[in-house]
Parts: sequence; structure tokens; C-alpha cells
Amino acid sequence: MTKRKTTPTPPSLPAVPNVILELITYNREKYSKVEAVDPDELLSKLQPDQVNWVNLDGLHNHDIIEKLQSHFCLHSLLIDDVLADQRPKAEEYEGYLFFTLKMLYRIEGMQIDYEQVSFVLGNNFLVSFQEKEGDLFDGFRDRIRLDLGKVRKKQADYLLYRLIDIIVDNYYNVLDRVGDLIEEIEENVYENPSTKTFHDIQLLKKELIYLRKALYPLREALSKVVKGESEFILEENLRYYSDVYDHVSHLIDSLDTYKDLTSSLLDIHINAMNTKMNEVMKVLTVISTIFMPLTFIVGVYGMNFDHMPELKWRSGYYGVWGVMFLIVISMLFFFRRKKWF
Amino acid sequence: MTKRKTTPTPPSLPAVPNVILELITYNREKYSKVEAVDPDELLSKLQPDQVNWVNLDGLHNHDIIEKLQSHFCLHSLLIDDVLADQRPKAEEYEGYLFFTLKMLYRIEGMQIDYEQVSFVLGNNFLVSFQEKEGDLFDGFRDRIRLDLGKVRKKQADYLLYRLIDIIVDNYYNVLDRVGDLIEEIEENVYENPSTKTFHDIQLLKKELIYLRKALYPLREALSKVVKGESEFILEENLRYYSDVYDHVSHLIDSLDTYKDLTSSLLDIHINAMNTKMNEVMKVLTVISTIFMPLTFIVGVYGMNFDHMPELKWRSGYYGVWGVMFLIVISMLFFFRRKKWF
Amino acid sequence: MTKRKTTPTPPSLPAVPNVILELITYNREKYSKVEAVDPDELLSKLQPDQVNWVNLDGLHNHDIIEKLQSHFCLHSLLIDDVLADQRPKAEEYEGYLFFTLKMLYRIEGMQIDYEQVSFVLGNNFLVSFQEKEGDLFDGFRDRIRLDLGKVRKKQADYLLYRLIDIIVDNYYNVLDRVGDLIEEIEENVYENPSTKTFHDIQLLKKELIYLRKALYPLREALSKVVKGESEFILEENLRYYSDVYDHVSHLIDSLDTYKDLTSSLLDIHINAMNTKMNEVMKVLTVISTIFMPLTFIVGVYGMNFDHMPELKWRSGYYGVWGVMFLIVISMLFFFRRKKWF
Amino acid sequence: MTKRKTTPTPPSLPAVPNVILELITYNREKYSKVEAVDPDELLSKLQPDQVNWVNLDGLHNHDIIEKLQSHFCLHSLLIDDVLADQRPKAEEYEGYLFFTLKMLYRIEGMQIDYEQVSFVLGNNFLVSFQEKEGDLFDGFRDRIRLDLGKVRKKQADYLLYRLIDIIVDNYYNVLDRVGDLIEEIEENVYENPSTKTFHDIQLLKKELIYLRKALYPLREALSKVVKGESEFILEENLRYYSDVYDHVSHLIDSLDTYKDLTSSLLDIHINAMNTKMNEVMKVLTVISTIFMPLTFIVGVYGMNFDHMPELKWRSGYYGVWGVMFLIVISMLFFFRRKKWF
Amino acid sequence: MTKRKTTPTPPSLPAVPNVILELITYNREKYSKVEAVDPDELLSKLQPDQVNWVNLDGLHNHDIIEKLQSHFCLHSLLIDDVLADQRPKAEEYEGYLFFTLKMLYRIEGMQIDYEQVSFVLGNNFLVSFQEKEGDLFDGFRDRIRLDLGKVRKKQADYLLYRLIDIIVDNYYNVLDRVGDLIEEIEENVYENPSTKTFHDIQLLKKELIYLRKALYPLREALSKVVKGESEFILEENLRYYSDVYDHVSHLIDSLDTYKDLTSSLLDIHINAMNTKMNEVMKVLTVISTIFMPLTFIVGVYGMNFDHMPELKWRSGYYGVWGVMFLIVISMLFFFRRKKWF
Repeated sequence: MTKRKTTPTPPSLPAVPNVILELITYNREKYSKVEAVDPDELLSKLQPDQVNWVNLDGLHNHDIIEKLQSHFCLHSLLIDDVLADQRPKAEEYEGYLFFTLKMLYRIEGMQIDYEQVSFVLGNNFLVSFQEKEGDLFDGFRDRIRLDLGKVRKKQADYLLYRLIDIIVDNYYNVLDRVGDLIEEIEENVYENPSTKTFHDIQLLKKELIYLRKALYPLREALSKVVKGESEFILEENLRYYSDVYDHVSHLIDSLDTYKDLTSSLLDIHINAMNTKMNEVMKVLTVISTIFMPLTFIVGVYGMNFDHMPELKWRSGYYGVWGVMFLIVISMLFFFRRKKWF
Repeated sequence: MTKRKTTPTPPSLPAVPNVILELITYNREKYSKVEAVDPDELLSKLQPDQVNWVNLDGLHNHDIIEKLQSHFCLHSLLIDDVLADQRPKAEEYEGYLFFTLKMLYRIEGMQIDYEQVSFVLGNNFLVSFQEKEGDLFDGFRDRIRLDLGKVRKKQADYLLYRLIDIIVDNYYNVLDRVGDLIEEIEENVYENPSTKTFHDIQLLKKELIYLRKALYPLREALSKVVKGESEFILEENLRYYSDVYDHVSHLIDSLDTYKDLTSSLLDIHINAMNTKMNEVMKVLTVISTIFMPLTFIVGVYGMNFDHMPELKWRSGYYGVWGVMFLIVISMLFFFRRKKWF
Repeated sequence: MTKRKTTPTPPSLPAVPNVILELITYNREKYSKVEAVDPDELLSKLQPDQVNWVNLDGLHNHDIIEKLQSHFCLHSLLIDDVLADQRPKAEEYEGYLFFTLKMLYRIEGMQIDYEQVSFVLGNNFLVSFQEKEGDLFDGFRDRIRLDLGKVRKKQADYLLYRLIDIIVDNYYNVLDRVGDLIEEIEENVYENPSTKTFHDIQLLKKELIYLRKALYPLREALSKVVKGESEFILEENLRYYSDVYDHVSHLIDSLDTYKDLTSSLLDIHINAMNTKMNEVMKVLTVISTIFMPLTFIVGVYGMNFDHMPELKWRSGYYGVWGVMFLIVISMLFFFRRKKWF
Repeated sequence: MTKRKTTPTPPSLPAVPNVILELITYNREKYSKVEAVDPDELLSKLQPDQVNWVNLDGLHNHDIIEKLQSHFCLHSLLIDDVLADQRPKAEEYEGYLFFTLKMLYRIEGMQIDYEQVSFVLGNNFLVSFQEKEGDLFDGFRDRIRLDLGKVRKKQADYLLYRLIDIIVDNYYNVLDRVGDLIEEIEENVYENPSTKTFHDIQLLKKELIYLRKALYPLREALSKVVKGESEFILEENLRYYSDVYDHVSHLIDSLDTYKDLTSSLLDIHINAMNTKMNEVMKVLTVISTIFMPLTFIVGVYGMNFDHMPELKWRSGYYGVWGVMFLIVISMLFFFRRKKWF
Repeated sequence: MTKRKTTPTPPSLPAVPNVILELITYNREKYSKVEAVDPDELLSKLQPDQVNWVNLDGLHNHDIIEKLQSHFCLHSLLIDDVLADQRPKAEEYEGYLFFTLKMLYRIEGMQIDYEQVSFVLGNNFLVSFQEKEGDLFDGFRDRIRLDLGKVRKKQADYLLYRLIDIIVDNYYNVLDRVGDLIEEIEENVYENPSTKTFHDIQLLKKELIYLRKALYPLREALSKVVKGESEFILEENLRYYSDVYDHVSHLIDSLDTYKDLTSSLLDIHINAMNTKMNEVMKVLTVISTIFMPLTFIVGVYGMNFDHMPELKWRSGYYGVWGVMFLIVISMLFFFRRKKWF
């Protein structure tokens, strides 16, 4: 159980040193929000008859994590999974359901930022662990406060669904951006197969590889939940999870499509390179084929033999020009027939 | 549940602003058709003892959709799926079966137009949602009116089968056109591996990628229906759905075949490009190999040394021509043996 | 249920206009054969206590097909499947088992001819539908007549097995021919990577693609039969079907092997092309590298400067020849060390 | 049931015309061996209370095969499978278990010889059919005679296990040889990407294709046996079959590894070819780029204009040499910066 | 059961001749460690009421192995599996569970060292077999002695879990190193596509092939254990095995990612090679295209015709220079428009 370096992840922003601990409790009537750095203070405010959402941003404060662990009786393996890089998964423990996935956000150029988010869902509580400050949930927090949508009428399992759904919906933004980039590159690659284009295609491919690594296990995890084996998800809410599952399947379909399109881009790039090369070779060949015979002919009459009758001819010089003109014409005719230009 | 942009779809025609709402009711004896923009008026004409087919073209009038939703008690997730780009699927709800798939139509050149069609099948009603005006069902509407075929003798589940079958049959037209294009390209690609051919192959590949994205999940959805778990499809009509399922399997087989053929086309194109390049190189090499030695020889006798005995020889000039002639002959013989032309 | 064009099929011979309708009835003791164009006449001769094999060649006479349909109570979907291009499949209906597959025959050059054959197996009858006149069953008809083998001792299900087995056995002939062609091409491709070879490899690939399209669903269909769910196949005869299933699996293994071999042929062809190209480039480079310096040297002494001491030297001319000779020798040495020839 | 040509098999040695029929009977106490050409004589010596191993080398004597068939009541389909090329399989019949697989032996260079071996396992007998004389079992026959190992203490099912195990163990030798060849080729291919290397890689690929065709179905067949459905294999001996199954899985893993390594070899070969081509092109370009400007310059001063002031200059000739020297130096500097040599 | 050469394994260090036999016994209260070469002495010290961990380094002392075999009643097939190269697997025997996997360690450059480790888990004992001296368990032995963590409170099945976990954790180190190497190569390959880079990519590919061969069957083996069929693993400890299973799945995901990245590296290398080649060709073509016409022109005025009016012109020489200057300018303009430099 050594602390593992997160194996293949793209370069990410520097970890934010802040630790934020936050508690939102609500039911149909009540709503309150507590932000505290002291975990004991916060845990004392949990409301047994309400939905309690404990959110932790920043995982390097071991003290807080240990207090959460002991309060919610979290298994040591679960805490290991929260702290180390993990493939998305759902796992049932006694007393709670563990769910972990990757959150994508902030796209600059072609860089995508990844963050691992883990959830522990109990009967009346949801604990969420995030690696860094800042998330996609701010708009949703307002919706809870203002009692918009169904969330205040539902239990903690619906809260988990909504959070997963927000994360998955953001994948659509990322994939749409990928789609735009593919179209952008495609417009350039036929005309101008530069090394930059090739570089961009490689970056795209890489993004798709990482996205695949995030999405395939997520579908697996959701399929496990959808099968309805968990006691912490009410049967009436299974349809919502099933809907997220469909979204992830749709995302994977799009991913596969983009993968095929990207590999087509590569084919186009290579073909454009080859076409350009062919063109260069043709220019070389046309020039050589025209001037080599000509240079030979003028070389012949540059020889210094004492006895060369043509040199004495009055119109010898003009005759040579005539012959050379005929050669050029027939060469051009030959290349035209071969459709070289 | 944000409104998602439809991720990888080919460019399509501008959305038609018209909204058409239409109701066809029928049984063995009666038939009537109402076209109305006011949903309340239309919904009041539903006949409980007949098959009611409500068809909506254009999904941007939220008022109509809300009224349909409340009248048929449609789940909010279902409405989300109708409005956003969705992978083809079949889903059983309490009170109705939801089915969504892609309709292809209007092929111009190699462009295929896609539209998402969704169906809600209840015990005596079928609601169909289409993104745009105009569909493939006009001929079939006439068949209902004129009481041709079995449709007036059957329930709403047979109606749904017929609509899906019409959409799937149209895929055959699209695939047949793809097959014709492959043959067309194949005839040209051996002779004339131009960038245009390559471009056409890429377009074909793209079309096949999108078709695959539409067909594979459709098969999945139909297989779910065929298993006979839905209460809204009578057992006697399952065979019909099973037949559509077989058609989709057949289409997928053809798709795979076309995919292989298209990738063969690419191989042929690349090979033709290389063959042409080789030819160019051979011309260059033949010309260089013949004229370089000749130019050297005439250069030798263009030197201005005071003492060069050959220059004085009477037949020196003719001797040089003889030597050069021998060189050309032996070169040609060498190239012939190497089968360069 | 529109009449579909058979999507990806290789070019086939023109449809034969003849329609042949034939009835063979037999049991252990009796045998009779009736050939008639009038279906009513033929159907009246069916023997309830014997095996009745009704064979129809040519599917464009709708009158005959309708009469067969009404006599054997064939489902309208079944008739659709018989008439349109269908993937091989087995389907159980009430009262009979439907089986359809592709028959291959007449190989000329690399062209294979395909024909769809459909069977309807009832308790004491077998109806076979063929698209064209002429089949592979003539030898077997004689065996029935002469009471060779077990067929006269068995029921209609054994008859169906034998017909499928004959069709499958013919696939072996086709695949053997493919194997011979691969060996033939392989002998040439190392030596002579011509466009013709490449063309042949592409044809082979195409044949294998079509064969795959015929064989994979056939295995599926047979596996359905072998599972023994059909009431029309006696359990004692299941072993025979299982044997055909094994043959088809074996054929698919061979197909995969041939596919890999064909793609190896392509690699070999491409490599031979590249090797040839390299050779051409080497010839060009060797010639250029030898003659360019020489031409330069003779050019130097072709200059017309008033003051060029070497030109006055008595042995200047021979000295230049000596220098050029040394250059040629050292070049050849350099190329030999680089193993260019 | 026509006699099929064995489809894709590598060229093998001419069939040996000898037919060898042999019977070994043994139990804990007794052992005897009979070699006879007359099957009746041999069959009369079967010992009901002992293990009887009947071995037949050479399958072209139909008389012997018919006698074995009638004595052991072998099904006609089984005899067909023994005589024709068959994919490895296990099949349960009434009264015996049929098992067929490929035996590899005698590796010369890269050629592997294949032979089909079939077994019929009954309660107290094992019949083995081999296509050719000579096998891998001689050492094991001695072990039976000398009562080494467990074989004399066990029943016929253990005997079958041991024979299969010997055949499978020999695959390891073949694969080890393949591994050695890969290493051998790899050492050469970086340095010397000749056509011979390429040819060897293709041969390797072919061998792996054929091995795959032998091993994959063998695993399937063994998995069928391991599931313990056969009544002819004692439960206590199932573990032995499971062990052979593991060996075959291990072989398949190695096969896949070798397949990947071979395809890497191909990549290396192609890269080495391209590197060489690049080198050739660089030599050509360097030579041309240096000598073309020089030849131009000396050409300029070879012109015969009446008025060319430089020609009169005293140091004109040396000046030209100086300029040419500067050009060569700057060219070399340019190529060095481009890292062309 | 011949001793097999371990088929495809990377070159490893010479086998260490030392044999180390070691026994650690512990429970909550007691702990003792015995190191002995005499197996009898060691086996006499087994404590029935404690956990007994027998560890053997070096498998060439048959005497020790036989004594362990007879003492723990190990099946002969199990001993075969311990001694020969085996794919990772879990196998239940009567009285114990057998588990074998590959241990990776000591990475120097890109070389990874493999060792096969086998475990036999009984009710109160664990026997571990290692091929070579030295392992990854030293830190863990100290933890047992110092009673750190849970191991002293748990049974032998937890001990096995911990040892497997340590081995699997070390795979992360190896894969992290692979990831670093990929990044390292990627930085160089765009700039400098040398043969060395290509060689490194091939080595990476090879490592990944071998890792795959170790990891895929390991996942299979662990999944077998996780299903909870073994009586030697307490249900409360299954979660731990399930955790290792997740780690291996995560490793396989990373492996697949690295495989895709490595194949991208290859694409980048090939593209960089081609780009360089194109550049070389352009230099050649630019130089040829500029100097060939110039050389022709100066050749024209090097001809020796008696009647060449231009030669008499006062400014003929300067006119030729002017024409040549115009040609060069227009050529450069042409190449600039073609974006060749």
C-alpha cells in the first residue's frame, strides 16, 4: 500500500495547497451550509434526519482524512483508493457505497486537466473527496440552496446521481471541443501537411487515449450500480443512474468515432506529404530531363576537334537552336501525356 | 441535464422552423386525420378504442412538448432524450416503451442527412418525435388511409414496427449508394490516383463511421425488444421485430464489408501513388544515366590543352560519336534487362 | 418490405429466365420424381407418408411462390427473406424450420458465383428455393434414386443435412483454389512486384471478404440448430448437423489463415516495390556521384583564361585522365564499402 | 462427405506407404506388445481386463480402418474426421470419446512438419490413428514396458493424457526454435536489411499463422474435456488434463508474444530500408549540390565571348579556384549544420 | 513432463547458485525466524498453532524440494509448475491453494528482470518458491518482526495477500519508469529521428509485450480467487484480494495506454524520417533546378561555331549574366510560392 505515483496522466496544473472542508445539510424544509477547517466542529453539525453532503477539496491534510475515516468508519483500503490514482469504480462496503471517477475541466488549447473525485454514499450522507480546489458543482450548490429541481425532495442517492451527471455532462464539452479541433485540422491538412499539423494530430490522439482510460471503466462502474445491487440507491432512482450510463455509452461511441476520424487525419497527412514529395520529384525530373540532353548538345559543339564540319556551316548555330527547340517541345508533350502537369 | 450539442454528426441542412403536429386515428373500420398547431385541440381528439398516432415534426416548441409530456405522463428523462442527441436505444417505462433511432435521408453526392426520431409506444397510442419537417412515412400514411396491408387490422405495436422497418429499409438505399461509389472509385483509382480520389475515399470512410455509430446501438436496442420483455409489444408481433433485427444485422455485415473494401481502396491508392513515383524516378535515372557519361565525354574534348592528340585526328569527331552511340546502346540494353521499361 | 437490391455481392452471371419446379418423393421402398411447371399439379402429388422434396429454381414467378406459400402456410416474412438478399440464418416457425445460406459455384479465374438457397423443413417435407437453374445436387439426386447411402432410410431432416453438407463441402473447393492462388502469387511477388500482382492480391482479398460474409453467419445459424431446440430435427440426427458446424468452423479457421497470408502478400509486394525503388535510386546516385566530379574537372580545363599554366604542360592532358581515373576508383571503393552493389 | 484436400497446410514430406498396426496391452502386472498387419489377428488379442492401446500408422489401408470401425463400433462421421483434415476437437460419442489434434515434428531450417493424430478413448481401450510412420511416442513406449512412472497403475484415460502431453510438450521445442530464430533475425535486421531477412520474417510469420491454427482449437477441445462432462475420463485424472490445458494456454500466450515480436521485426526491417534510402539520397544531394555550382562556374569561363574582361586578368584562373573553394567550404558547413553527415 | 526451457523471456542475470531456506513463524504474541539449509531441521520447527511462512530461494536443489513436497503433500504437477516457466495462475488443490506469478525487479536502463514466484497456501502455512536469491520482501519481514500493520493479527491468507500486493506494487514502479522513458523519447523524436530513437522505441515495445504476458493471466488468476471459491481464503480477507485485482486492472489500463503511446511514437518517428527525406529532396531539386538551366546557357556560348553573332556583341557577356540573374530570381520566386523554403 505504498503511495503510488499516478501513472499515465497528462501534465496538470500545480496542486493547490488550500484545503477546503464544507458541509451542506438539507431536506425539504431546511438548508444550511458550514465551511470549516476543523473537522471535529464540522462533523458535530451533521443532521441525522437530513441529507448531509460533506465535501473535501485537497487530500494532503491527513488529520482531516483520518477524522472523516473514523467518523464514517471508512475502510483503510477505501482511503488508499481515495488518495492514490485509481481507475473509476463502484464498490459496495458495509454501511456505504464507494464511487470514484475522473473529473475533467479547464481546457486550454488542447490541454485537458484531470482530477480524481471520490464519493462515499451512506444512508443519509454523501462524502466527496476532490484533489484540488474548485469544481463544477457551484451552479448546483445554488440550485440546492434555492430549492430548484428535485434535489431537496430526494435522498442522498439522488444527490450522488446529480454530481456524477454534472461531471459526465462536462465530458460532452470536452468531446465537442475535440470534434471542433478535428474539423479545424482537417481543413488544413489537405492543403498544408506541416509538422505542426502532425503534432496537433498526435496531441489529439493522446487526449483520446486518456479519455478512453477515464470513460471505459466509468461505464463498467455505472453498469454495476445500474444492476441495482446496492442497498444505498433507491429503486426509484435507478432510472437516473441508467440515464447516466446511457450518456457514458454515447460518449464512448463518440470517442470511438473520433478515434477513427483522427486516424483518418493521419492517413490524410501522410498522403498529403507523399503527394508533395511526388510533386518535388516531378519538378526535378522534368527539369533534368529537359536540360540534360540540351547541355549534352551544346557540349558537343564546344568540342575542339580540328575537323568538325558543322562548325563551319553558316546556319549551324541556328540549326542547333532548332534541334534543341524540337527536343523541348517533344519532352513537354511526353510529360503532358503522362499527366505530370 | 444541460442541452448538449450533438457531438459527432456530419453537417446537416438548416433546421426547418415549421412545427407540424398531426394525429392519425384508426381501427379496422374507422380512419381520421387531424392536423393542428394547438396541442390541446389535438389531444382532445384521441380515440381510446382506436390506434392513435401523434406525430410531431420540429422539437423547438416547448409548449407543445410540455403538453404532450403532461398528457401522456412522459418522464422528464425521456423528454431530455428526445431533445438531445442520443444513441439509438429502447427503454421500458411505466405505461409506455421508449424507442429512439436515427433516420437517414436525402443523399446528395456523398452527403447523408441524419435526423433523430423518437417513439413512445403505449397500449393504444404511438407518439413520434421528429427533428425536422418531412419524412419517409408519406407512402405509408396513404397505405393506412386506403387500408392496404395489415396495419389497420393490428395494434399500435405493429404501427411502430412498420415505421422502424421503413427507416431501416432506407438504410439499404444509403448502403447501396455507398456500394456504387466504391465501385466507381475502384475503377478510377488504379489508373488515376489523384488527390480527388483520395478525398472521396476519406469521405466514404467518414460516412461508414457515422453509419456504424447509428447501426450498432440500433441492433442492441432491437435485440432488447426482441427478447420479448416489453408488455407493449404483443407476442404475435415479436417475429416482425425479429425480422427488423435480422435486417440490421445484415446491414452491419454489409457495413463491415464496405469498411474492408474502403480500406482496400486506400491500399490501392497508395500503391498507385508509389507506382507512379517509381516511374518518375525511373525516367529521371534513365535520362541521367544516359546523358551524364555523354556530357562528360564531350566535356573531355572541350578542354583547351595544347597537347591533345585526338583533336588532331581526322576522324576524331566521328569516333567520339561512335563511342557515345555504343554507350547509349549498352545503357538501353542494361535498363531493358532490369525491366525498367 | 420493399424489394431490396442485394447489397455487396460480386458481379454474377445474368439471371436465367427458366423456372424449374420439381418434386422428389421417397421412402425406404418407393421413389418418384415429378417435374412440372404447374404448381397445383405438382402439389397434388405430395405423399404424406413419404419424404417430399419440393425444389424451385428461379424465384421470379410469383404465381408459383404464392401457391407454395399458401399450400405450406409459409409466413409472409419468410417469403420476403427467400426473395431478398439475406444473411444466412436458421429460424423456427410454427410448423416448419427456415434455413437460408449462400451456395458458391463455378469458379472462373478468381471470380466466384454466389447464389442464395433457402430451405423450409417440415415434418415430412423439404422445400428448397434457388435463385438460378443448375445446382450442386445432381449427384445426390442420383444417390437418392439408386438408394445409395442412408438417405432413403432417414427423414426429411437428414435430407436437409445432406444438402447443406454438399453446399459446405463445395466451400472447400473454393478455399482450396484460393490457397493455390496465394501460392501462385507468392512465387511471383518476390521477383516481379508488378501492378498485376497487386491487382490479383486485391481480388483475393475481396473474395475472402465475401466468403467471410457468407461463412460467419452460417456458423451462427448452424450453432442455433445444433443446440437442438428445433422440433423438426430428430435428436439422432443432431450429430450430423454438429459435423457440418465443425466443417464451417474449420473453413473459418482456414479463411482467417488465408486472410493473414494475403495481408502478408501485400507486405511482400510493398517491400519488393521499395527494394526496386532503392535499386533505382542507387543506380542514379552511383552514376551521378561518379560523373559529376569528372564533368567538373573537364570543365575546368575548358575555361578560356589567358593564363592557365596547366594547359601548356606537355603531359597535362594525360595527368587529367590520371586524376579522373583515381577519382573513379576511389568512388567505386566507397560504394563497395557501403555495399551498394 | 467427399474426401477433402487438407486446405492450408505447409508443404510436408511424401506420405510413407507403410502401414503399421500395433497393440500394446498392459495393467499393473502384465505387459505385451503385438505388431501385425492383419487386423483380425490383432483384434483377437485385445485383453478386456487390461488397458489396450491400438496404434495405426498410415491411413490409406481402408480394409484395416473398416475392421477397426466395425470392431469398436466407430461412427461413420468419426472415420470421416480421422481421414480428412480436421480442426483439433474433442467429441463425445456413445461408448467412446473422440479427440483429434495436430502433431508437429522434425524441424529443418524453418520448415515444420504437421501430422494429424486422432484418438478414440473407450473404457479399457485407446485407438490412435496417425497419418505417417514414426512418432514422438517411442520413449514413452519404453516407459510403459519398463513400468516407469504412473502409467501402468492408471487406466486408458491417463494413457491418452500422456500422449497428448507428449505432443503438446513438443510444441515447446518448436516455439523455442521460433524464439531463437527471432533473436537471430533481430541481430541482423538493424545492420543489414536484405531481402533474405525479409523473406525469413515472412516465413516466421507463416509458421506462427499455422501454429495458431493448430493451438487455438486445441485449447477449445481441452477446455471441453476439462469441464469434466466426459464419462471416459476419471475425475481424479481431470487435473492432468487441466494441466495440459494450462500448457496450451501458455503456448498461446507465447505465440501471441512471438507474433508481436515478428511484426516488430517487420517494422525494424522497413525502418532500416528507409534509413538506407535516406542515406543514398543524402549522398546524391551532397554530391549534386557541391558540383553543380562548380560546373556552372567553370562553364561561365568556358564561354567564347570576344569581350570577357576576367579572362585577361593575370590571376583570373586562380581567383576562380578561390571562389570554388569558398563555395565547397560553405556547402560543407551547411550540410554539417543540417547534420547530414 | 520434460523440463521446458522458458520460452519467450528477456535476457536475465545469471542464476545465483545459492539456495536459501527460511522459516518465519508468528502469531499475535510470538515471532521466530529460522534460516537453515537442512530442510528436515527446518520442517521440525513448524508451529501448528501459528502462521508458518517457509521461503525457498533457488530451485535447483532437488533434495530440498522433494522434502517440502513430501511434507506438505504437494502434487507432482504442482512441483512441475513451480520448476518450469508457467503463466500466472491460481489453482485449488486438496489441502492447499497454489498461486504463481512473475516478480519484476532491478531495472537497469530499459532492461527488466523477471523471476517466477510460486506460493502454496494451506490453513496455517504458506510456502513460497523463488528462482533467485534476493526479493522485494525484506521491508515486509521487518514489519512482521516489529508487529507493524495488521499482519500479526491475521492468518496465512492475509500474508499471501501482502506478498502478492508487494509484487504488484512493484509493477507500478516499472510502469512509471516506462512512462518516463516514453516522455523522454517523445521529446527527442520530433527533432532527431535517429536510429537510436527507433531502437529505444522497439525496446519499449518489447518490454510492454512481456509485461502484458505477465499481467493479463495474473488478472485472470486473481479474478478466480476473488470469486471466493477457495476455502483457504477467509471471506473477510476477500476484499483485500479484490483490491489487488483492481490494481492489476489499473495496471493493464496503463499498459494499454502505454502501448498506444508507443505506437504513436513510432508514427512520429516515421513522419520525422519522411519530413527529413522531403527536405533532402527539396534541396536537391532546388539546386538542380537553378543550376541546370544556367549550365545550359553558359554551354551555349561555349560552342565553337564560326558564325555566332552574340559572341561578337560588346555587351554579350553581361547580357548573359543578366539573363541568368533573371532565371535565378524567377526560380526562387517559384519555389517561394510553392512554400519549399
